[in-house]
Amino acid sequence: MPKLDLTKVPVKTGSIYPEPYASQMTGRSSLRLADAGGLTQFGANLVILAPGAKSSLRHWHLHEDEFVMITKGACTLVQDAGETPMTVGDCAAFPAGSTDGHHFINHTDAEVRFLVVGTKARHEVATYSDIDMVVRLDAGTARFTHKDGTDWSGPK
Amino acid sequence: MPKLDLTKVPVKTGSIYPEPYASQMTGRSSLRLADAGGLTQFGANLVILAPGAKSSLRHWHLHEDEFVMITKGACTLVQDAGETPMTVGDCAAFPAGSTDGHHFINHTDAEVRFLVVGTKARHEVATYSDIDMVVRLDAGTARFTHKDGTDWSGPK
Repeated sequence: MPKLDLTKVPVKTGSIYPEPYASQMTGRSSLRLADAGGLTQFGANLVILAPGAKSSLRHWHLHEDEFVMITKGACTLVQDAGETPMTVGDCAAFPAGSTDGHHFINHTDAEVRFLVVGTKARHEVATYSDIDMVVRLDAGTARFTHKDGTDWSGPK
Repeated sequence: MPKLDLTKVPVKTGSIYPEPYASQMTGRSSLRLADAGGLTQFGANLVILAPGAKSSLRHWHLHEDEFVMITKGACTLVQDAGETPMTVGDCAAFPAGSTDGHHFINHTDAEVRFLVVGTKARHEVATYSDIDMVVRLDAGTARFTHKDGTDWSGPK
């Protein structure tokens, strides 16, 4: 059945980040809609941010295009140049390889929802803008390192 | 600027279909949002259906996954098994190679909008479920044929 029953899509919580960053993701959850519909070429996740929550650590992707559309509430897009307010219907695009990291923060008292679409590249590198951390994703396995390529050993 | 100014995204109208099908697409327009944001790996188009309009001829894709989220109004998803009502927030997924063709029709008196995401495959074949027509897309060039592979020569 192509129409998705959103009440049956598992709500994913938690984070693959090492501490202390995983704990900073409290209040963020998501529904992996494209996966639920049997798609394999891109992800389409409905991200839900409780008041105060953020979408991710600020980051940029080396190989994967990313697209976002806000579907509920109002949040703040943070990039190198500062903050941009986003509300329902607003969209943003982050081309692969563009080094201006981004994330979304819910500074309001109400829930925020947005759809995020991202290509599923076989190999991917995401670089975290504000800390000394990089993640390499190869065939589903994530390896966190410092920016010099050494294994992750905690905040420096 | 990753946040898109939707007022500056060109509104695309018309159709690449041969007649008599191009004329059946009246009332459909779209904004190519991912293109406007510099993305190349997938399309993300905001489709606008006036009352009575339809999204496309009913079709399925051989190589490209497709995902839809309704963002305004209520419309009808049509597939082999019949009709499914869709309203704001409803999503549907159409995996590449699934031969159950689909399209969306606005049977209401109000405008419908939906976001449609589709992979940009280098080579693609779309088959039209209800007529004897196929389109082959290679590096941006479209060639319409009958289902037996002969050049399109009009409805049979």
